[in-house]
Amino acid sequence: MTHSELFEKIVRKRSFLCVGLDTEIEKIPSFLLGKKKPIFEFNKRIIDATHEFAVAYKTNVAFYESEGAKGWAALEDTVNYITKNYPDIFVIADAKRGDIGNTSKMYAKAFFENMPFDAVTVAPYMGEDSVTPFLAYENKWTVLLALTSNKGAGDFQYHDEDGIKLFERVLSVSQKWGTTNNLMYVVGATRAEMLKNIRKVAPEHFLLVPGIGAQGGSLEEVAKYGMNNKCGLLVNSSRGIIFAGSESDFDVIAGQKAKEIQLEMEKYLLQRNLIL
Amino acid sequence: MTHSELFEKIVRKRSFLCVGLDTEIEKIPSFLLGKKKPIFEFNKRIIDATHEFAVAYKTNVAFYESEGAKGWAALEDTVNYITKNYPDIFVIADAKRGDIGNTSKMYAKAFFENMPFDAVTVAPYMGEDSVTPFLAYENKWTVLLALTSNKGAGDFQYHDEDGIKLFERVLSVSQKWGTTNNLMYVVGATRAEMLKNIRKVAPEHFLLVPGIGAQGGSLEEVAKYGMNNKCGLLVNSSRGIIFAGSESDFDVIAGQKAKEIQLEMEKYLLQRNLIL
Repeated sequence: MTHSELFEKIVRKRSFLCVGLDTEIEKIPSFLLGKKKPIFEFNKRIIDATHEFAVAYKTNVAFYESEGAKGWAALEDTVNYITKNYPDIFVIADAKRGDIGNTSKMYAKAFFENMPFDAVTVAPYMGEDSVTPFLAYENKWTVLLALTSNKGAGDFQYHDEDGIKLFERVLSVSQKWGTTNNLMYVVGATRAEMLKNIRKVAPEHFLLVPGIGAQGGSLEEVAKYGMNNKCGLLVNSSRGIIFAGSESDFDVIAGQKAKEIQLEMEKYLLQRNLIL
Repeated sequence: MTHSELFEKIVRKRSFLCVGLDTEIEKIPSFLLGKKKPIFEFNKRIIDATHEFAVAYKTNVAFYESEGAKGWAALEDTVNYITKNYPDIFVIADAKRGDIGNTSKMYAKAFFENMPFDAVTVAPYMGEDSVTPFLAYENKWTVLLALTSNKGAGDFQYHDEDGIKLFERVLSVSQKWGTTNNLMYVVGATRAEMLKNIRKVAPEHFLLVPGIGAQGGSLEEVAKYGMNNKCGLLVNSSRGIIFAGSESDFDVIAGQKAKEIQLEMEKYLLQRNLIL
Protein backbone atom coordinates (compact mmCIF):
# COMPACT_ATOMS: atom_id res chain seq x y z
CA MET A 1 0.00 0.00 0.00
CA THR A 2 1.44 3.35 -1.05
CA HIS A 3 1.29 6.70 0.69
CA SER A 4 -1.43 7.81 -1.77
CA GLU A 5 -3.46 4.66 -1.27
CA LEU A 6 -3.38 5.21 2.47
CA PHE A 7 -4.57 8.77 1.97
CA GLU A 8 -7.39 7.52 -0.29
CA LYS A 9 -8.56 5.23 2.51
CA ILE A 10 -8.62 8.20 4.87
CA VAL A 11 -10.69 10.21 2.41
CA ARG A 12 -13.11 7.32 1.86
CA LYS A 13 -13.55 6.60 5.56
CA ARG A 14 -13.46 10.31 6.56
CA SER A 15 -11.26 9.15 9.39
CA PHE A 16 -7.62 8.70 10.33
CA LEU A 17 -8.41 6.57 13.34
CA CYS A 18 -6.31 3.62 14.31
CA VAL A 19 -7.98 1.40 16.90
CA GLY A 20 -5.46 -0.10 19.29
CA LEU A 21 -6.15 -3.72 20.20
CA ASP A 22 -4.31 -3.69 23.54
CA THR A 23 -6.35 -6.67 24.60
CA GLU A 24 -5.52 -7.38 28.21
CA ILE A 25 -7.19 -10.56 29.41
CA GLU A 26 -7.84 -9.06 32.87
CA LYS A 27 -9.85 -6.25 31.32
CA ILE A 28 -12.14 -8.05 28.91
CA PRO A 29 -15.78 -8.61 29.96
CA SER A 30 -15.94 -11.63 32.25
CA PHE A 31 -18.66 -13.41 30.24
CA LEU A 32 -16.10 -13.89 27.45
CA LEU A 33 -13.67 -15.77 29.68
CA GLY A 34 -15.65 -18.99 29.34
CA LYS A 35 -15.16 -18.99 25.55
CA LYS A 36 -12.50 -21.15 23.96
CA LYS A 37 -10.62 -18.15 22.56
CA PRO A 38 -11.59 -15.20 24.77
CA ILE A 39 -9.01 -12.71 23.42
CA PHE A 40 -9.90 -13.42 19.81
CA GLU A 41 -13.66 -13.34 20.58
CA PHE A 42 -13.22 -9.93 22.18
CA ASN A 43 -11.18 -8.61 19.26
CA LYS A 44 -13.61 -9.96 16.68
CA ARG A 45 -16.54 -8.18 18.27
CA ILE A 46 -14.54 -4.95 18.70
CA ILE A 47 -13.43 -5.09 15.06
CA ASP A 48 -16.93 -5.80 13.73
CA ALA A 49 -18.27 -2.84 15.72
CA THR A 50 -15.54 -0.30 14.93
CA HIS A 51 -14.23 -1.08 11.43
CA GLU A 52 -16.43 1.39 9.62
CA PHE A 53 -14.94 4.28 11.63
CA ALA A 54 -11.30 3.21 11.41
CA VAL A 55 -8.64 3.07 8.72
CA ALA A 56 -6.24 0.99 10.80
CA TYR A 57 -5.90 -1.44 13.68
CA LYS A 58 -2.82 -1.70 15.82
CA THR A 59 -2.25 -4.84 17.84
CA ASN A 60 -0.01 -4.24 20.82
CA VAL A 61 2.03 -7.43 20.66
CA ALA A 62 3.00 -7.40 24.37
CA PHE A 63 -0.58 -8.11 25.38
CA TYR A 64 -0.62 -11.28 23.26
CA GLU A 65 2.91 -12.36 24.11
CA SER A 66 2.08 -12.16 27.81
CA GLU A 67 -0.34 -15.06 27.25
CA GLY A 68 2.33 -17.30 25.70
CA ALA A 69 1.79 -19.53 22.68
CA LYS A 70 -1.99 -19.23 23.14
CA GLY A 71 -1.70 -15.44 23.04
CA TRP A 72 0.43 -15.65 19.94
CA ALA A 73 -2.28 -17.75 18.29
CA ALA A 74 -4.82 -15.05 19.24
CA LEU A 75 -2.61 -12.46 17.52
CA GLU A 76 -2.50 -14.61 14.37
CA ASP A 77 -6.27 -15.16 14.47
CA THR A 78 -6.86 -11.43 14.89
CA VAL A 79 -4.73 -10.20 12.00
CA ASN A 80 -6.07 -12.97 9.76
CA TYR A 81 -9.64 -12.03 10.68
CA ILE A 82 -9.08 -8.38 9.81
CA THR A 83 -7.37 -8.98 6.48
CA LYS A 84 -9.93 -11.58 5.43
CA ASN A 85 -13.06 -9.67 6.41
CA TYR A 86 -11.93 -6.07 6.02
CA PRO A 87 -9.14 -6.17 3.43
CA ASP A 88 -9.31 -2.41 3.15
CA ILE A 89 -7.93 -1.92 6.67
CA PHE A 90 -4.27 -1.18 7.42
CA VAL A 91 -2.94 -3.48 10.17
CA ILE A 92 0.00 -2.54 12.37
CA ALA A 93 1.94 -4.85 14.69
CA ASP A 94 3.03 -2.59 17.52
CA ALA A 95 6.05 -4.65 18.45
CA LYS A 96 8.89 -2.12 18.82
CA ARG A 97 11.38 -4.69 17.58
CA GLY A 98 14.94 -4.06 16.45
CA ASP A 99 18.13 -6.13 16.56
CA ILE A 100 21.22 -6.88 14.49
CA GLY A 101 20.52 -7.53 10.81
CA ASN A 102 20.09 -11.31 10.76
CA THR A 103 17.80 -11.09 13.80
CA SER A 104 15.68 -8.18 12.59
CA LYS A 105 15.19 -10.24 9.43
CA MET A 106 13.56 -12.92 11.59
CA TYR A 107 11.28 -10.37 13.24
CA ALA A 108 10.30 -9.03 9.82
CA LYS A 109 9.55 -12.58 8.70
CA ALA A 110 7.33 -13.11 11.77
CA PHE A 111 5.11 -10.12 11.05
CA PHE A 112 5.28 -9.79 7.25
CA GLU A 113 5.49 -13.40 6.04
CA ASN A 114 3.92 -15.58 8.70
CA MET A 115 1.31 -12.96 9.47
CA PRO A 116 -0.21 -10.48 7.00
CA PHE A 117 0.60 -7.26 8.86
CA ASP A 118 0.99 -4.13 6.75
CA ALA A 119 3.35 -2.46 9.20
CA VAL A 120 5.55 -3.06 12.22
CA THR A 121 6.79 -0.55 14.79
CA VAL A 122 10.58 -0.63 15.15
CA ALA A 123 12.96 0.85 17.74
CA PRO A 124 15.82 2.93 16.28
CA TYR A 125 18.56 2.51 18.91
CA MET A 126 20.58 -0.07 16.93
CA GLY A 127 20.62 1.95 13.72
CA GLU A 128 20.36 1.27 10.02
CA ASP A 129 21.01 -2.47 9.72
CA SER A 130 18.45 -3.12 12.48
CA VAL A 131 15.77 -1.29 10.47
CA THR A 132 16.46 -2.11 6.80
CA PRO A 133 15.35 -5.78 7.01
CA PHE A 134 11.83 -4.47 7.66
CA LEU A 135 12.07 -1.90 4.86
CA ALA A 136 13.13 -4.62 2.43
CA TYR A 137 9.55 -5.94 2.16
CA GLU A 138 7.63 -4.53 -0.77
CA ASN A 139 4.26 -2.94 0.03
CA LYS A 140 4.98 -3.12 3.76
CA TRP A 141 5.67 -0.29 6.17
CA THR A 142 8.16 0.31 8.94
CA VAL A 143 6.99 2.60 11.71
CA LEU A 144 10.08 3.92 13.46
CA LEU A 145 9.97 5.31 17.00
CA ALA A 146 10.90 8.98 16.99
CA LEU A 147 9.33 10.84 19.92
CA THR A 148 7.28 8.63 22.21
CA SER A 149 4.32 9.57 24.41
CA ASN A 150 5.65 8.39 27.76
CA LYS A 151 7.46 10.25 30.53
CA GLY A 152 10.71 8.37 29.88
CA ALA A 153 10.87 9.93 26.39
CA GLY A 154 12.75 12.73 28.12
CA ASP A 155 15.58 10.50 29.28
CA PHE A 156 17.35 10.01 25.95
CA GLN A 157 15.23 11.29 23.06
CA TYR A 158 16.17 14.90 23.84
CA HIS A 159 19.93 14.18 24.06
CA ASP A 160 21.23 17.13 22.08
CA GLU A 161 24.25 17.22 19.75
CA ASP A 162 24.91 20.72 18.37
CA GLY A 163 21.24 21.65 18.64
CA ILE A 164 20.00 18.42 17.10
CA LYS A 165 18.05 16.25 19.48
CA LEU A 166 18.26 12.48 19.24
CA PHE A 167 14.68 12.10 17.98
CA GLU A 168 15.37 14.72 15.30
CA ARG A 169 18.48 12.83 14.29
CA VAL A 170 16.39 9.64 14.08
CA LEU A 171 13.94 11.47 11.82
CA SER A 172 16.57 12.93 9.50
CA VAL A 173 19.04 10.04 9.28
CA SER A 174 16.39 7.34 8.79
CA GLN A 175 14.82 9.17 5.84
CA LYS A 176 17.80 7.94 3.82
CA TRP A 177 16.86 4.34 4.58
CA GLY A 178 13.27 4.39 3.36
CA THR A 179 10.75 6.50 1.48
CA THR A 180 7.44 8.17 2.26
CA ASN A 181 5.90 4.99 0.84
CA ASN A 182 7.39 2.56 3.32
CA LEU A 183 8.51 4.52 6.37
CA MET A 184 6.46 6.36 8.96
CA TYR A 185 7.20 7.57 12.48
CA VAL A 186 5.76 7.20 15.96
CA VAL A 187 5.22 10.62 17.51
CA GLY A 188 3.39 10.77 20.83
CA ALA A 189 0.30 12.96 21.14
CA THR A 190 1.19 14.01 24.67
CA ARG A 191 3.77 16.30 23.03
CA ALA A 192 1.51 17.60 20.28
CA GLU A 193 3.18 21.00 20.08
CA MET A 194 6.39 19.17 19.07
CA LEU A 195 4.62 18.05 15.91
CA LYS A 196 5.21 21.52 14.49
CA ASN A 197 8.98 21.03 14.64
CA ILE A 198 8.73 17.45 13.51
CA ARG A 199 6.86 18.57 10.38
CA LYS A 200 9.87 20.74 9.53
CA VAL A 201 12.12 17.66 9.49
CA ALA A 202 9.56 15.20 8.06
CA PRO A 203 6.92 17.20 6.18
CA GLU A 204 5.61 14.36 4.00
CA HIS A 205 5.83 11.21 6.09
CA PHE A 206 2.88 9.61 7.77
CA LEU A 207 3.01 9.82 11.55
CA LEU A 208 1.48 7.22 13.83
CA VAL A 209 0.32 9.12 16.89
CA PRO A 210 -0.46 7.24 20.10
CA GLY A 211 -1.39 8.88 23.36
CA ILE A 212 -4.83 10.42 22.84
CA GLY A 213 -7.48 9.22 25.27
CA ALA A 214 -6.14 7.39 28.35
CA GLN A 215 -2.71 8.98 27.94
CA GLY A 216 -4.15 12.48 27.80
CA GLY A 217 -3.17 13.82 24.36
CA SER A 218 -5.51 16.15 22.44
CA LEU A 219 -6.76 15.16 19.00
CA GLU A 220 -7.39 18.79 18.11
CA GLU A 221 -3.78 19.73 18.76
CA VAL A 222 -2.46 16.72 16.92
CA ALA A 223 -4.52 17.70 13.86
CA LYS A 224 -3.53 21.36 14.18
CA TYR A 225 0.22 20.75 14.34
CA GLY A 226 0.63 17.42 12.58
CA MET A 227 -1.72 17.31 9.60
CA ASN A 228 -0.25 17.81 6.14
CA ASN A 229 -1.86 18.00 2.70
CA LYS A 230 -2.22 14.20 2.52
CA CYS A 231 -3.46 14.08 6.12
CA GLY A 232 -0.21 12.36 7.10
CA LEU A 233 -1.64 11.13 10.37
CA LEU A 234 -2.86 7.88 11.85
CA VAL A 235 -4.06 8.63 15.36
CA ASN A 236 -4.39 5.70 17.71
CA SER A 237 -6.81 5.20 20.56
CA SER A 238 -6.78 1.95 22.48
CA ARG A 239 -8.18 1.77 26.01
CA GLY A 240 -10.54 4.73 25.43
CA ILE A 241 -12.36 2.66 22.81
CA ILE A 242 -11.98 -1.03 23.51
CA PHE A 243 -12.50 -0.86 27.29
CA ALA A 244 -15.13 1.90 27.28
CA GLY A 245 -17.79 -0.69 28.09
CA SER A 246 -17.45 -3.79 30.25
CA GLU A 247 -20.83 -5.47 29.88
CA SER A 248 -22.33 -7.56 27.10
CA ASP A 249 -22.75 -4.42 24.96
CA PHE A 250 -19.03 -3.55 25.17
CA ASP A 251 -18.76 -3.74 21.40
CA VAL A 252 -21.67 -1.35 20.83
CA ILE A 253 -20.08 1.15 23.21
CA ALA A 254 -16.69 0.72 21.52
CA GLY A 255 -18.39 1.45 18.21
CA GLN A 256 -19.94 4.63 19.64
CA LYS A 257 -16.59 5.80 20.99
CA ALA A 258 -14.90 5.10 17.67
CA LYS A 259 -17.64 6.98 15.87
CA GLU A 260 -17.25 10.01 18.16
CA ILE A 261 -13.55 10.17 17.33
CA GLN A 262 -14.24 9.62 13.63
CA LEU A 263 -16.69 12.54 13.62
CA GLU A 264 -14.13 14.80 15.24
CA MET A 265 -11.53 13.69 12.71
CA GLU A 266 -13.98 14.35 9.87
CA LYS A 267 -14.29 17.92 11.13
CA TYR A 268 -10.53 18.48 10.94
CA LEU A 269 -10.31 16.89 7.49
CA LEU A 270 -13.10 19.21 6.31
CA GLN A 271 -11.39 22.26 7.82
CA ARG A 272 -8.27 21.46 5.79
CA ASN A 273 -10.32 20.81 2.64
CA LEU A 274 -8.94 17.30 2.41
CA ILE A 275 -12.47 15.89 2.01
CA LEU A 276 -15.67 17.36 0.63
CA MET B 1 20.15 -14.58 41.66
CA THR B 2 22.50 -11.90 43.00
CA HIS B 3 25.66 -10.51 41.47
CA SER B 4 27.73 -12.63 43.90
CA GLU B 5 25.80 -15.79 43.09
CA LEU B 6 26.42 -15.24 39.41
CA PHE B 7 30.13 -14.81 40.09
CA GLU B 8 30.11 -18.02 42.15
CA LYS B 9 28.66 -19.88 39.17
CA ILE B 10 31.45 -18.52 37.01
CA VAL B 11 34.07 -19.68 39.52
CA ARG B 12 32.50 -23.12 39.77
CA LYS B 13 32.19 -23.59 36.02
CA ARG B 14 35.52 -21.85 35.28
CA SER B 15 33.65 -20.20 32.46
CA PHE B 16 31.72 -17.05 31.64
CA LEU B 17 30.26 -18.49 28.47
CA CYS B 18 26.71 -17.79 27.39
CA VAL B 19 25.56 -20.09 24.59
CA GLY B 20 23.22 -18.32 22.19
CA LEU B 21 20.32 -20.43 21.03
CA ASP B 22 19.67 -18.56 17.76
CA THR B 23 17.91 -21.60 16.44
CA GLU B 24 17.08 -20.93 12.83
CA ILE B 25 14.98 -23.73 11.38
CA GLU B 26 16.75 -23.45 7.99
CA LYS B 27 20.10 -24.15 9.62
CA ILE B 28 19.37 -27.14 11.83
CA PRO B 29 20.47 -30.60 10.60
CA SER B 30 17.93 -31.88 8.14
CA PHE B 31 17.41 -35.22 9.91
CA LEU B 32 15.74 -33.31 12.76
CA LEU B 33 13.11 -31.79 10.51
CA GLY B 34 11.05 -34.99 10.58
CA LYS B 35 10.68 -34.76 14.36
CA LYS B 36 7.52 -33.40 15.92
CA LYS B 37 9.34 -30.48 17.57
CA PRO B 38 12.51 -29.98 15.54
CA ILE B 39 13.57 -26.66 17.13
CA PHE B 40 13.18 -28.00 20.64
CA GLU B 41 14.90 -31.30 19.73
CA PHE B 42 17.84 -29.36 18.37
CA ASN B 43 18.05 -27.13 21.45
CA LYS B 44 17.76 -30.06 23.85
CA ARG B 45 20.68 -31.84 22.26
CA ILE B 46 22.76 -28.64 22.14
CA ILE B 47 22.00 -27.91 25.80
CA ASP B 48 22.83 -31.46 26.93
CA ALA B 49 26.14 -31.26 25.09
CA THR B 50 27.22 -27.77 26.16
CA HIS B 51 25.80 -27.15 29.65
CA GLU B 52 28.91 -28.17 31.52
CA PHE B 53 30.93 -25.46 29.76
CA ALA B 54 28.39 -22.66 30.05
CA VAL B 55 27.01 -20.48 32.83
CA ALA B 56 24.18 -19.09 30.72
CA TYR B 57 21.97 -19.63 27.69
CA LYS B 58 20.50 -16.84 25.66
CA THR B 59 17.50 -17.55 23.46
CA ASN B 60 17.20 -15.08 20.62
CA VAL B 61 13.45 -14.61 20.66
CA ALA B 62 13.21 -13.50 17.00
CA PHE B 63 14.15 -16.95 15.80
CA TYR B 64 11.22 -18.50 17.70
CA GLU B 65 8.76 -15.72 16.92
CA SER B 66 9.45 -16.15 13.20
CA GLU B 67 7.87 -19.61 13.49
CA GLY B 68 4.64 -18.26 15.00
CA ALA B 69 2.73 -19.91 17.87
CA LYS B 70 4.67 -23.15 17.24
CA GLY B 71 7.95 -21.29 17.61
CA TRP B 72 6.70 -19.64 20.76
CA ALA B 73 5.93 -23.08 22.18
CA ALA B 74 9.48 -24.15 21.31
CA LEU B 75 10.79 -21.16 23.27
CA GLU B 76 8.68 -22.18 26.27
CA ASP B 77 9.81 -25.81 26.00
CA THR B 78 13.45 -24.72 25.80
CA VAL B 79 13.51 -22.46 28.84
CA ASN B 80 11.51 -25.00 30.83
CA TYR B 81 13.93 -27.75 29.84
CA ILE B 82 16.95 -25.74 30.97
CA THR B 83 15.53 -24.67 34.32
CA LYS B 84 14.25 -28.17 35.09
CA ASN B 85 17.36 -30.11 34.12
CA TYR B 86 20.10 -27.56 34.78
CA PRO B 87 18.69 -25.26 37.49
CA ASP B 88 22.13 -23.81 38.01
CA ILE B 89 22.13 -22.11 34.59
CA PHE B 90 21.25 -18.46 34.02
CA VAL B 91 18.73 -18.08 31.18
CA ILE B 92 18.37 -14.89 29.17
CA ALA B 93 15.56 -13.98 26.78
CA ASP B 94 17.24 -11.85 24.13
CA ALA B 95 14.11 -9.95 23.20
CA LYS B 96 15.18 -6.29 23.11
CA ARG B 97 11.75 -5.22 24.28
CA GLY B 98 10.73 -1.81 25.59
CA ASP B 99 7.49 0.18 25.48
CA ILE B 100 5.39 2.52 27.64
CA GLY B 101 4.97 1.34 31.23
CA ASN B 102 1.74 -0.66 31.02
CA THR B 103 3.05 -2.43 27.90
CA SER B 104 6.54 -3.18 29.22
CA LYS B 105 4.76 -4.68 32.20
CA MET B 106 3.14 -7.18 29.83
CA TYR B 107 6.49 -8.04 28.23
CA ALA B 108 7.97 -8.56 31.69
CA LYS B 109 5.06 -10.84 32.55
CA ALA B 110 5.67 -12.86 29.36
CA PHE B 111 9.28 -13.62 30.19
CA PHE B 112 9.36 -13.58 34.00
CA GLU B 113 5.97 -15.02 34.99
CA ASN B 114 4.79 -17.18 32.13
CA MET B 115 8.32 -18.37 31.41
CA PRO B 116 11.09 -18.83 33.99
CA PHE B 117 13.73 -16.60 32.38
CA ASP B 118 16.29 -15.03 34.71
CA ALA B 119 16.87 -12.05 32.46
CA VAL B 120 15.51 -10.13 29.48
CA THR B 121 17.33 -7.76 27.14
CA VAL B 122 15.64 -4.36 26.93
CA ALA B 123 16.05 -1.40 24.54
CA PRO B 124 16.63 1.97 26.26
CA TYR B 125 15.17 4.43 23.73
CA MET B 126 11.89 5.01 25.61
CA GLY B 127 13.59 5.72 28.94
CA GLU B 128 12.92 4.95 32.57
CA ASP B 129 9.26 3.90 32.65
CA SER B 130 9.89 1.51 29.76
CA VAL B 131 12.61 -0.26 31.77
CA THR B 132 11.43 -0.22 35.40
CA PRO B 133 8.61 -2.79 34.92
CA PHE B 134 11.34 -5.35 34.20
CA LEU B 135 13.44 -4.22 37.17
CA ALA B 136 10.41 -4.59 39.47
CA TYR B 137 10.78 -8.39 39.51
CA GLU B 138 12.76 -9.71 42.44
CA ASN B 139 15.65 -12.02 41.61
CA LYS B 140 15.35 -11.20 37.91
CA TRP B 141 17.70 -9.20 35.73
CA THR B 142 17.29 -6.53 33.10
CA VAL B 143 19.96 -6.42 30.42
CA LEU B 144 19.88 -2.96 28.90
CA LEU B 145 21.33 -2.24 25.45
CA ALA B 146 24.22 0.17 25.73
CA LEU B 147 26.70 -0.26 22.87
CA THR B 148 25.69 -2.90 20.36
CA SER B 149 27.89 -5.02 18.12
CA ASN B 150 26.40 -4.11 14.76
CA LYS B 151 27.41 -1.50 12.18
CA GLY B 152 24.29 0.59 12.85
CA ALA B 153 25.48 1.16 16.43
CA GLY B 154 27.26 4.18 14.96
CA ASP B 155 24.07 5.84 13.77
CA PHE B 156 22.72 7.01 17.14
CA GLN B 157 24.68 5.45 20.01
CA TYR B 158 27.57 7.91 19.49
CA HIS B 159 25.31 10.98 19.39
CA ASP B 160 27.33 13.31 21.60
CA GLU B 161 26.03 15.91 24.05
CA ASP B 162 28.84 17.91 25.69
CA GLY B 163 31.27 15.04 25.34
CA ILE B 164 28.82 12.43 26.61
CA LYS B 165 27.80 9.89 24.00
CA LEU B 166 24.30 8.45 24.02
CA PHE B 167 25.44 4.98 25.10
CA GLU B 168 27.41 6.56 27.96
CA ARG B 169 24.32 8.48 29.00
CA VAL B 170 22.34 5.23 28.92
CA LEU B 171 24.96 3.65 31.18
CA SER B 172 25.05 6.49 33.69
CA VAL B 173 21.35 7.46 33.81
CA SER B 174 20.06 3.89 34.02
CA GLN B 175 22.26 3.07 37.01
CA LYS B 176 19.80 5.10 39.07
CA TRP B 177 16.98 2.75 38.05
CA GLY B 178 18.52 -0.54 39.14
CA THR B 179 21.42 -2.02 41.04
CA THR B 180 24.40 -4.23 40.23
CA ASN B 181 22.14 -7.08 41.39
CA ASN B 182 19.40 -6.62 38.81
CA LEU B 183 20.81 -4.58 35.95
CA MET B 184 23.47 -5.46 33.40
CA TYR B 185 24.38 -4.07 29.99
CA VAL B 186 24.81 -5.29 26.45
CA VAL B 187 28.18 -4.20 25.10
CA GLY B 188 29.24 -5.57 21.73
CA ALA B 189 32.56 -7.40 21.43
CA THR B 190 33.28 -5.93 18.03
CA ARG B 191 34.15 -2.72 19.90
CA ALA B 192 36.18 -4.38 22.64
CA GLU B 193 38.53 -1.43 23.13
CA MET B 194 35.47 0.61 24.14
CA LEU B 195 35.06 -1.66 27.15
CA LYS B 196 37.88 0.26 28.81
CA ASN B 197 35.82 3.46 28.79
CA ILE B 198 32.65 1.60 29.69
CA ARG B 199 34.35 0.22 32.79
CA LYS B 200 34.97 3.82 33.90
CA VAL B 201 31.22 4.51 33.83
CA ALA B 202 30.05 1.07 35.00
CA PRO B 203 32.90 -0.56 36.90
CA GLU B 204 30.82 -3.11 38.84
CA HIS B 205 27.98 -4.13 36.55
CA PHE B 206 27.89 -7.37 34.65
CA LEU B 207 28.17 -6.92 30.90
CA LEU B 208 26.58 -9.27 28.40
CA VAL B 209 28.92 -9.30 25.43
CA PRO B 210 27.69 -10.61 22.08
CA GLY B 211 29.71 -10.54 18.92
CA ILE B 212 32.55 -13.00 19.38
CA GLY B 213 32.73 -15.73 16.77
CA ALA B 214 30.63 -15.12 13.65
CA GLN B 215 30.55 -11.35 14.27
CA GLY B 216 34.35 -11.18 14.59
CA GLY B 217 34.96 -9.96 18.16
CA SER B 218 37.99 -11.19 20.12
CA LEU B 219 37.50 -12.94 23.45
CA GLU B 220 41.01 -12.03 24.52
CA GLU B 221 40.33 -8.31 24.08
CA VAL B 222 36.96 -8.54 25.79
CA ALA B 223 38.61 -10.18 28.82
CA LYS B 224 41.48 -7.69 28.76
CA TYR B 225 39.34 -4.56 28.72
CA GLY B 226 36.09 -5.73 30.28
CA MET B 227 36.87 -8.09 33.15
CA ASN B 228 36.55 -6.76 36.70
CA ASN B 229 37.27 -8.35 40.07
CA LYS B 230 34.01 -10.33 39.99
CA CYS B 231 34.58 -11.26 36.33
CA GLY B 232 31.67 -9.00 35.39
CA LEU B 233 31.30 -10.61 31.98
CA LEU B 234 28.97 -13.01 30.25
CA VAL B 235 30.31 -13.55 26.75
CA ASN B 236 27.92 -14.96 24.21
CA SER B 237 28.63 -17.17 21.24
CA SER B 238 25.75 -18.43 19.11
CA ARG B 239 26.37 -19.53 15.54
CA GLY B 240 30.02 -20.43 16.22
CA ILE B 241 28.85 -23.14 18.62
CA ILE B 242 25.39 -24.31 17.68
CA PHE B 243 25.91 -24.49 13.91
CA ALA B 244 29.55 -25.66 13.99
CA GLY B 245 28.38 -29.13 12.90
CA SER B 246 25.55 -30.00 10.56
CA GLU B 247 25.48 -33.80 10.70
CA SER B 248 24.13 -36.22 13.28
CA ASP B 249 27.04 -35.38 15.60
CA PHE B 250 26.24 -31.65 15.59
CA ASP B 251 25.78 -31.73 19.37
CA VAL B 252 29.17 -33.36 19.96
CA ILE B 253 30.83 -30.70 17.80
CA ALA B 254 28.91 -27.93 19.60
CA GLY B 255 30.16 -29.38 22.89
CA GLN B 256 33.75 -29.32 21.60
CA LYS B 257 33.41 -25.70 20.47
CA ALA B 258 31.91 -24.68 23.81
CA LYS B 259 34.72 -26.48 25.61
CA GLU B 260 37.37 -24.67 23.53
CA ILE B 261 35.88 -21.32 24.52
CA GLN B 262 35.54 -22.41 28.16
CA LEU B 263 39.23 -23.36 28.25
CA GLU B 264 40.21 -19.99 26.87
CA MET B 265 37.98 -18.29 29.44
CA GLU B 266 39.52 -20.39 32.22
CA LYS B 267 42.93 -19.06 31.17
CA TYR B 268 41.79 -15.43 31.54
CA LEU B 269 40.13 -16.15 34.90
CA LEU B 270 43.37 -17.73 36.12
CA GLN B 271 45.44 -14.78 34.87
CA ARG B 272 43.30 -12.45 36.97
CA ASN B 273 43.48 -14.77 40.00
CA LEU B 274 39.70 -15.06 40.03
CA ILE B 275 39.95 -18.86 40.21
CA LEU B 276 42.60 -21.21 41.56
